[in-house]
Amino acid sequence: MSNIITMIAPVNIAVIKYWGKRNEELILPLNDSVSVTLNANVMCAKTTVCVSPNFLEDEIWLNGAKESFTNQRLQNCLKEIKSRAAVERSVDDIFLTWKVHICSENNFPTAAGLASSAAGYACLVSALAKAYKIKSDVSSIARLGSGSACRSVYGGFVRWHAGVESDGSDSIAVQIANKSHWPEMSALILVVGDTQKKISSSKGMKLSVETSDLFQFRVQNCVPKRVEEICKAITTKDFVKFAEITMKDSNQFHAICLDSYPPITYMTDTSYKIIEMIHKYNNIHPKIKIAYTFDAGPNACLYLLEEEVPKILSLIQHIFPTSTPDKFITGLPIQHEKIDTDLIKIFSQPHQKDLLKYVIHTKIGDGPTEVIDGSHLLNECGWPTNLH
Amino acid sequence: MSNIITMIAPVNIAVIKYWGKRNEELILPLNDSVSVTLNANVMCAKTTVCVSPNFLEDEIWLNGAKESFTNQRLQNCLKEIKSRAAVERSVDDIFLTWKVHICSENNFPTAAGLASSAAGYACLVSALAKAYKIKSDVSSIARLGSGSACRSVYGGFVRWHAGVESDGSDSIAVQIANKSHWPEMSALILVVGDTQKKISSSKGMKLSVETSDLFQFRVQNCVPKRVEEICKAITTKDFVKFAEITMKDSNQFHAICLDSYPPITYMTDTSYKIIEMIHKYNNIHPKIKIAYTFDAGPNACLYLLEEEVPKILSLIQHIFPTSTPDKFITGLPIQHEKIDTDLIKIFSQPHQKDLLKYVIHTKIGDGPTEVIDGSHLLNECGWPTNLH
Repeated sequence: MSNIITMIAPVNIAVIKYWGKRNEELILPLNDSVSVTLNANVMCAKTTVCVSPNFLEDEIWLNGAKESFTNQRLQNCLKEIKSRAAVERSVDDIFLTWKVHICSENNFPTAAGLASSAAGYACLVSALAKAYKIKSDVSSIARLGSGSACRSVYGGFVRWHAGVESDGSDSIAVQIANKSHWPEMSALILVVGDTQKKISSSKGMKLSVETSDLFQFRVQNCVPKRVEEICKAITTKDFVKFAEITMKDSNQFHAICLDSYPPITYMTDTSYKIIEMIHKYNNIHPKIKIAYTFDAGPNACLYLLEEEVPKILSLIQHIFPTSTPDKFITGLPIQHEKIDTDLIKIFSQPHQKDLLKYVIHTKIGDGPTEVIDGSHLLNECGWPTNLH
Repeated sequence: MSNIITMIAPVNIAVIKYWGKRNEELILPLNDSVSVTLNANVMCAKTTVCVSPNFLEDEIWLNGAKESFTNQRLQNCLKEIKSRAAVERSVDDIFLTWKVHICSENNFPTAAGLASSAAGYACLVSALAKAYKIKSDVSSIARLGSGSACRSVYGGFVRWHAGVESDGSDSIAVQIANKSHWPEMSALILVVGDTQKKISSSKGMKLSVETSDLFQFRVQNCVPKRVEEICKAITTKDFVKFAEITMKDSNQFHAICLDSYPPITYMTDTSYKIIEMIHKYNNIHPKIKIAYTFDAGPNACLYLLEEEVPKILSLIQHIFPTSTPDKFITGLPIQHEKIDTDLIKIFSQPHQKDLLKYVIHTKIGDGPTEVIDGSHLLNECGWPTNLH
């Protein structure tokens, strides 16, 4: 069948956080945000879309389980794809009447603050866009699925413009620089726990908008300055500035969560131990070497340049001992380095075992790409190849 | 000897937090703060002051150990007491030339976020004021020792006016209402850990003033409104309003700490578990029953009316099990109540053992009072009766 398309899409981790909507239904944010797209070969969503006259209804399978297609966000994405295809006259009218089967999975835990919905909706919308032969920017369609998904539609460094239009037409993602601009940019995801988070991002940000007295000040006064500064830091490859703004914005986002009522807490004692380690590490160097950022969960994403990776990984292994050393570091291969004994002296005793479950080593990456090896998640009849 | 004076002074726990100075030396705050003074029979500082022509030098002993008298804050307090005495002509000129011995101790762990320096300096200054027969308000002198000490100079509910004068003459504490106004007001101190805190309040607030982008907004826009509202809630005995503002201001203070760079964290996972418990408890009642507040440490202070004490204590014992049940609840006696089985069902399983070390049950209390039973901390020659 020619109407089967499979794509993978990357996660992105924001350095200027998206928190708070100006329109709940259209998922329009109150402030611009900036993110780094990570290598999709390490962490990705994979989605197969099949459009066929043989299907009786639209159906979707997520991570091996059938889900209802009545989900409003999903409906909005499909509706907008078809309407865009009609405007662009990219497919025959009859094609628009056929039903669609969608099968999607993530290769990492969902809803644990690891941007799974961003990768998921970016993948879904990119695959649909390919199937419906849409040529224009689809970041605003991915946004209808999950706000931050619009940023995963591009690789490298991406800015999501909040926009001002009430229909959301100018609330789109734009690439600041592609991955080749700063290929040394690396990331380490420190997985603290893969349990479901307590309060969803959607509910959390709504609560912050409604109850945090500090929220509006952040949106109006702090974020605009930071966005300009970090875009400049990216274009000039000023790592120190990039890192400082990233850490400050992560902390401010969590400060806003804490200022909400009742307060929202995503970080745990282990998260704070990571923060402490990074500041200590930076303090013993003449310049900032590593930045941390935390999304709506306890896991850290560290941004650092390639050359620093072996050293900090050896330190992490020392400070956060594990009982499964062979499974502790995953993702891209690294050169193992023996820990610097001078470094150990500066740091305190190791913490108790297994505060960190594992570490994912990855890098800056490209946007969604088509999978052409034929490894579709739907078979030739349009049914899942692998159900749990 | 007639020149020996012993006093006890209470701790106070702020409901609108003091965080940030406009003058480091004079300890002038950037915003008004409001506190509740707690019963000095439960938690107090006790100080004996002796002024004698026989002493060769000023000397001080704190919690059983000799300390240097060169401490600038201590010097400032003594200097100001003597200058006030000179203005009031309250003692003979020769008396002002005599040296002083001071011995002070707290009946609770110091520097663990339990307002020990507030009680300590309020006690020291009150005892000196008594020895030097000063009649005027001494809250501005206590303030020179430790900002929040000025609030422990009065009982009941106290407002510390930030003032506007550069010499600090209008930065004084004023009683909003005495303890008889709202005698049902009770407090439970949940001691999470009595370890020394990581960063002192002084250093922490300086860092916030210098680095938090949200700080000025809090000081200028949030606190003034809250101070007026909580003063009104106190005078009208509106517990619900009092509790809501108290919780919001505690959270905002810690949000500002987190927004500082590097971020400051005083609360721990256990602190957040307490917050979660209180919101859950309040949610199952038609009206807010309990407020939490956290100073620069992980311990909680819960404010609640007397009638609620047995019920929440039984719940705390259930949710935070202890391996030392006979030492778990200290302070004022309580009526034991069997835990409500309906209440248990609503709450999750108990947490692991010993997250809380112990609980102090106390109430609203009076300001500093003289100890007249002769149990001085200095003997008739002016030397400590009990050294470690």
